Amino acid sequence: MTGARQAAVAAVDWGTSHLRIWLLDRDGMVLDERRSGEGLLKTGADGFAGVLARHLADMGTDDALPAIICGMAGSRQGWLEVPYVDVPAALDAVLGRAERVPGLAREVAIIPGLAQRDAAAPDVLRGEETQLAGVPGLRGAREALVAMPGTHSKWVVVRDGSVSGFGTWLTGELFSLLASQSILRHALAGADFAVAADDPTFAAWLGSAVAEPSTLSAALFRIRAATLLQGMQPAKAAAALSGLLIGSEIGAARQRFGAGVETVTLVASGPLGALYAAGLAQAGFTVARADAEAAVREGLAAAARQRWPQRIKPEVPA
Amino acid sequence: MTGARQAAVAAVDWGTSHLRIWLLDRDGMVLDERRSGEGLLKTGADGFAGVLARHLADMGTDDALPAIICGMAGSRQGWLEVPYVDVPAALDAVLGRAERVPGLAREVAIIPGLAQRDAAAPDVLRGEETQLAGVPGLRGAREALVAMPGTHSKWVVVRDGSVSGFGTWLTGELFSLLASQSILRHALAGADFAVAADDPTFAAWLGSAVAEPSTLSAALFRIRAATLLQGMQPAKAAAALSGLLIGSEIGAARQRFGAGVETVTLVASGPLGALYAAGLAQAGFTVARADAEAAVREGLAAAARQRWPQRIKPEVPA
Repeated sequence: MTGARQAAVAAVDWGTSHLRIWLLDRDGMVLDERRSGEGLLKTGADGFAGVLARHLADMGTDDALPAIICGMAGSRQGWLEVPYVDVPAALDAVLGRAERVPGLAREVAIIPGLAQRDAAAPDVLRGEETQLAGVPGLRGAREALVAMPGTHSKWVVVRDGSVSGFGTWLTGELFSLLASQSILRHALAGADFAVAADDPTFAAWLGSAVAEPSTLSAALFRIRAATLLQGMQPAKAAAALSGLLIGSEIGAARQRFGAGVETVTLVASGPLGALYAAGLAQAGFTVARADAEAAVREGLAAAARQRWPQRIKPEVPA
Repeated sequence: MTGARQAAVAAVDWGTSHLRIWLLDRDGMVLDERRSGEGLLKTGADGFAGVLARHLADMGTDDALPAIICGMAGSRQGWLEVPYVDVPAALDAVLGRAERVPGLAREVAIIPGLAQRDAAAPDVLRGEETQLAGVPGLRGAREALVAMPGTHSKWVVVRDGSVSGFGTWLTGELFSLLASQSILRHALAGADFAVAADDPTFAAWLGSAVAEPSTLSAALFRIRAATLLQGMQPAKAAAALSGLLIGSEIGAARQRFGAGVETVTLVASGPLGALYAAGLAQAGFTVARADAEAAVREGLAAAARQRWPQRIKPEVPA
């Protein structure tokens, strides 16, 4: 390898069902990347250390390359349980509390998640703290409301570079369970679930759910009834279910976090990002988009800069 | 058989997952009953006609015994699709619109379900119309709000003996899916799901859900967080999930149907009835309980009296 293109650090997003590895050079630029389904549930016989070593060797690096990791690898069922940092938590400080995995020649450090120890609204997150740190401008923002849709959508309030509170919606998981295993599977049978953000059925169901998120459970069965009484077709039923769940999330999150908020920072990728962007706009928010994958990579790079300043150059102030 | 103890009619509740048959004498009294798992999903090779004939023969009756049926046997996936009756629908008239299954020597009639052809809140029910007709006093009530908890809970407004509107909550189905297949399965692992109606955890989670039903999806994840941050044990997690789902249902149904309502008629059996009775009382309602199984049997008897007055005596006015 030439000096300029040599890997300085491995940045690793290790979740429940996915593993992503980026090799970053000393400027923080991406040299190479890998994606694998070897998430927490499928690390297999190699274990975490074995899986990581295999991928990094395949990518042509040696055992001296340090790795910074975020996500469920730091959970109780993961590689090393890294205790949560309680909110309010400064994002820079959270990155600095990455813990080294003991007993390895390679230096591997895992970033902690966040805990909200509120008796009425206990909540946790892991991985999103690193994404938040990587969203352009967010560590310096005076106040921001951030929507991070997914299997377990997170809504996060950031004040002066600190996470002050957050909430979790089971939107993605509910969609999967309801679409494939509930009475609604009949209504959605054969639909490919690729809902278009400009689908009027999506917009209609989203709109009523945003206005009245309390009707979620009652409105679910209306999709079934609409197939029986109104001939609703599977693709429209998928759009309705998606609109209903996303609309309920946005409506309830707006009630909880949205007072006085004009702009929501949306951290998402792909089709899901388009659906949430449409939904947030329909709910009256201005949307500032950030790519979810770029955000986690930048957050990992920021943590690496703090930990190994001799390996990777400091950020250039914007 | 002696005349006094001879079966006059078979009353059949045939749902998605269950089949219940009662033999009634000419006074409408129960002579014998059968329960089977041969619901819609498991009628098997015998088909509906074969399953019914086998059970009735086993119970010592002959082919001349007529049968009145309610439930999903009248759906598109059932024995004979009996078109829905639109609301508002007088309960007595609905019973009178049972349709005869063609091509059988035995007279078999299936009671129709109800449809709410409201563009904003389409809904359907099958089986509950017969239960409603069998709840003591309900056909004569000026106005009643009826809660019918289950896999798909129904809330029904009855005015002057007619169903004027209703809604469906997926409460029971959501509990099953979330408890066994979502991220919450870890929180509930090993719990037997036998939640006690006086469990303070049930009451606490129910109370906050009743007050704010829009928080359902966000509050689900709090159960997971409570196990991680507060050491919540599986039995308490089951109580929390039950309280949350039932509370959300009661809270949202109260918003939709509860204005000015003091008493809710609760049509339920067993432990679920106890949980809803506790929840409704906590939400400020007076509860009038009716047994769900007795109600469907009495509703079937009422339909039989209309159809075969020579076989079964008219009701004695209360």
